[in-house]
Amino acid sequence: MAGTYRYRIEPRDIDASLRVRLYTMGDLILQAANDDADMLGFGVKDLNAGIGSAGVEASWVLSRMAVEMHRLPARHEEMDVYTWVSDYGRLMTTRNMTVADEAGIGIGAAVTQWAMIDLSTRRPLDLSSLSSKSTSLVDREPPIEKPRKVPAVGDNDIARRPYTVVYSDIDFNGHVNSMKYLEWMANTLPPEVLTGLSGFRFDINYIHEARLGEALTVCLGVYQEGAHLFDIKNADGVSICRASLSVK
Amino acid sequence: MAGTYRYRIEPRDIDASLRVRLYTMGDLILQAANDDADMLGFGVKDLNAGIGSAGVEASWVLSRMAVEMHRLPARHEEMDVYTWVSDYGRLMTTRNMTVADEAGIGIGAAVTQWAMIDLSTRRPLDLSSLSSKSTSLVDREPPIEKPRKVPAVGDNDIARRPYTVVYSDIDFNGHVNSMKYLEWMANTLPPEVLTGLSGFRFDINYIHEARLGEALTVCLGVYQEGAHLFDIKNADGVSICRASLSVK
Repeated sequence: MAGTYRYRIEPRDIDASLRVRLYTMGDLILQAANDDADMLGFGVKDLNAGIGSAGVEASWVLSRMAVEMHRLPARHEEMDVYTWVSDYGRLMTTRNMTVADEAGIGIGAAVTQWAMIDLSTRRPLDLSSLSSKSTSLVDREPPIEKPRKVPAVGDNDIARRPYTVVYSDIDFNGHVNSMKYLEWMANTLPPEVLTGLSGFRFDINYIHEARLGEALTVCLGVYQEGAHLFDIKNADGVSICRASLSVK
Repeated sequence: MAGTYRYRIEPRDIDASLRVRLYTMGDLILQAANDDADMLGFGVKDLNAGIGSAGVEASWVLSRMAVEMHRLPARHEEMDVYTWVSDYGRLMTTRNMTVADEAGIGIGAAVTQWAMIDLSTRRPLDLSSLSSKSTSLVDREPPIEKPRKVPAVGDNDIARRPYTVVYSDIDFNGHVNSMKYLEWMANTLPPEVLTGLSGFRFDINYIHEARLGEALTVCLGVYQEGAHLFDIKNADGVSICRASLSVK
């Protein structure tokens, strides 16, 4: 089972280049993941209501994500996000996306990896017990290389920005919106890097969840292997989220 | 001439209450203003290209805004924003909005006041010379009390939050998005004030524009006359934007 979801780029989604922002593109890709999981009956709302014979209250947690775009849609353009689940491991499932413009031409793709947690213990659940597993799988390989493990940014970072998590970062699930981490990272770059993008690949690894009011440090690493490196650390210096961004 | 514009509340527009955020509602109202001005041929793009016989490059600048909502639309709801211009003074024009839900029931209204500036001098232009003036006016009073003048927050503020303007604050015009000021203000309140809203009125006064990289202080004043008071000050202590928020 796979689904296609259409989104329109609104004025609030674009920057001074008049094209969609990096993290807003990521947000729309995640929206397709949510919309499709809802459609198939295993969305966050369904999981929150309880799964399996024991009725365990559960939720999806995004673990890693990679997005590649070679054209950024502009204001008022519509785009179709086609999404499918290609595999389930015991602890992780892979959901893929391809993005096409109104003419049907491919402009990007994404791979996302998710764990399911028990909301009472916050521990991962065994995905092999999911009854909907077999019917929802599509035998089609991920469209791009799976999300990479992003290295730490050490003490040789070139910029450090303190950041405190606020109300506007919290999404409808009551958690920090996954793309807010990327937004905080993007804000450490010179703006012309972002408005000058003609394409990009980002890989993001979620390690610990940030909480409302938490004081963080967003670190920008030395540019290496063609990529900007980012590392968000908590007050104890522990990484909570890392990402790399290659730009074209 | 008046126009109606339909918007849909998307997952990224809502908070944990599953209803539209305060400042996102304001953003959609301003989007209707932009969409309607574009439609009538005097949008920002038209003004940027030059107006009058001298071809002066101009732009609209939002001066004051008031929004009253007595119901906040929820995720996936559509709403219609009806907008019209009710008057032109020499320096200021008034654009009004009413908001209706899918059933056609009024859920809110807004009044916005705009100046037009010469982009080369940044000085206000005389609106009485506008050729499109007479054809665009609608003889209908503003639907709510016009935006109030908001008092300063003095040294008896109850919260002060430093804020530096970043890339994600800048909109497609290359300026700080008007609703970002309100977002910074909202982030000084306890989140439960915002997720608990059943209705509100806000009045916002724009005094000076914030610039990318500028270090600001967002001050929350003592609650008075039924309203939260906000004052954003620059490094010299000068107010650049003030607002009041009455909640229901």
